[in-house]
Amino acid sequence: MKKITIAIDTMGGDLGPAAIIEGVGMAMLEYPIEPVLFGTEELLREEAEKRGGMKIIHAPTVIEPCEPPTLAFRRKKDSSLVMGLKYVKDGHAQCFVSAGSTGALLTGATMIIGRRAGISRPALATVLPSRKGFTLLMDCGANMDCRPEYLAQFGQMGAEYMQKCMGIKNPRVGLINVGAEEEKGNLLTKEAYILLKETGINFVGNIEGREILAGGADVVVCDGFTGNVLLKFTEGFAKSLMGMIKDELMSSGVSKLGALLAKGAFAKLKKRFDYREVGGAPLLGLNQLVIKAHGSSDALAIKNAIRQCVLHEST
Amino acid sequence: MKKITIAIDTMGGDLGPAAIIEGVGMAMLEYPIEPVLFGTEELLREEAEKRGGMKIIHAPTVIEPCEPPTLAFRRKKDSSLVMGLKYVKDGHAQCFVSAGSTGALLTGATMIIGRRAGISRPALATVLPSRKGFTLLMDCGANMDCRPEYLAQFGQMGAEYMQKCMGIKNPRVGLINVGAEEEKGNLLTKEAYILLKETGINFVGNIEGREILAGGADVVVCDGFTGNVLLKFTEGFAKSLMGMIKDELMSSGVSKLGALLAKGAFAKLKKRFDYREVGGAPLLGLNQLVIKAHGSSDALAIKNAIRQCVLHEST
Repeated sequence: MKKITIAIDTMGGDLGPAAIIEGVGMAMLEYPIEPVLFGTEELLREEAEKRGGMKIIHAPTVIEPCEPPTLAFRRKKDSSLVMGLKYVKDGHAQCFVSAGSTGALLTGATMIIGRRAGISRPALATVLPSRKGFTLLMDCGANMDCRPEYLAQFGQMGAEYMQKCMGIKNPRVGLINVGAEEEKGNLLTKEAYILLKETGINFVGNIEGREILAGGADVVVCDGFTGNVLLKFTEGFAKSLMGMIKDELMSSGVSKLGALLAKGAFAKLKKRFDYREVGGAPLLGLNQLVIKAHGSSDALAIKNAIRQCVLHEST
Repeated sequence: MKKITIAIDTMGGDLGPAAIIEGVGMAMLEYPIEPVLFGTEELLREEAEKRGGMKIIHAPTVIEPCEPPTLAFRRKKDSSLVMGLKYVKDGHAQCFVSAGSTGALLTGATMIIGRRAGISRPALATVLPSRKGFTLLMDCGANMDCRPEYLAQFGQMGAEYMQKCMGIKNPRVGLINVGAEEEKGNLLTKEAYILLKETGINFVGNIEGREILAGGADVVVCDGFTGNVLLKFTEGFAKSLMGMIKDELMSSGVSKLGALLAKGAFAKLKKRFDYREVGGAPLLGLNQLVIKAHGSSDALAIKNAIRQCVLHEST
């Protein structure tokens, strides 16, 4: 099997380069990859040499989360983000992984790697656990204000991704909306509905909030504002609900014992809602694959972000 | 204690008038109310007489969920919805409760009962359970496309409601958004942030999705599209997550026993996420109180919708 070369921005994560390099090391034990690390060389060398097999390319500057993306991208051509993206663009690597600022990554990826023909705006896609399996939610935050045609394109890109990476044949695509009927919604979804019907994908119509996790669609599309609020709400809700369950269980002796016996089941479920298990959100609609890893990614999250590249490139 | 007269649309619910009248009967046993039922008299008489103390006003027509609101409202002046709203407007009752179509109720209430001075758009508010208590989410679906000033007004109305009906002093109001920083968001939230700062209410800034149920704000505001998707997502998520927990628990003998022992705790939690326990969403920003009960309200939900009127009118 031919090895997959992956460019990795080691400077963007909240936990620093050591956690990211540890994740790369974990991925190397499982997948046929050739990692290329971008970042401040003296910060990376020791960790990388300890593990071996990692190439380092020195990038002297870092784009900070607070910097306005377009400006940061123009000024810091020697940053780990810009240099890594150029490396992929020039064909030296197949994919790029970064835990840095979404805005800068989106701007940089669009300007350097470029949009695919026919795509107006790249978008972030995230896989959510549903009772029947998985649902791809997109856009999760790349495009705050959308035009109807963007949503139609999200549907097409999402369907393609689920078919290619998750092996789902003819994926069902739904439009997140406030009612089942075609005429429901805001100005954006009313127009997007009409366009989605014309795409030729398996469009199953509107999906109300309560059906998103019920498994009625393999891909659900919305603007990046709604998607981001929903995605973070899911993280918070799972945590809050587990907390409420814990509070209730600890309130009596009988249920305390019940909680103890049910511990294994809870741990398994917690894992399903742990963002580190998914590892990252693909930025779809570009000429090459870019994975946005969660800002607070630890080694496990980085390993799983790399797994997504492997899945994508080996099919 | 002076009795509160409540006008009730008996025709709007999915379960028919009998369930609604049963709920009214339950409320009469607990609260000092004088209910006035609007609907087709021959459908109500038997149930109402069985319980006693209910006044019936015959309304020969019904507004169906599929009818365009403005048109339905103009054509069916003799419907239970229109006649009940007029009764409240004319001062014969203090509040109105309906499980009928949100659109028709909103249009009718705005045109008949009228908006409060300084309010551009009435909005639906729903109380969500949070780990620390409750959070009021508004707008939950009355206004699909909002202007920034609507969101600022939602904040003011929501704060007033939580202070008056839930006894929360100086309620904290948050703006649902994609990041904590002021400059984050879509065009709507960026402008709404500036306006909310100027309202004089206790505005605590942006609230990300993961913090909505963590209890960081007593009131969270957003446009009616986002709010409706979130509200229904909450209903569905609680159900899906409980289902996933059940699936996991049933997968082994030890955890099956655990589930049995923890049953009481689960039942209590399920109740917290049961919309019937809240009973209805107040339509805020009108000259009198209107409660939108869930379309599929049963007797318990109607009783609790009436409890909201009692809470509101007795403070």
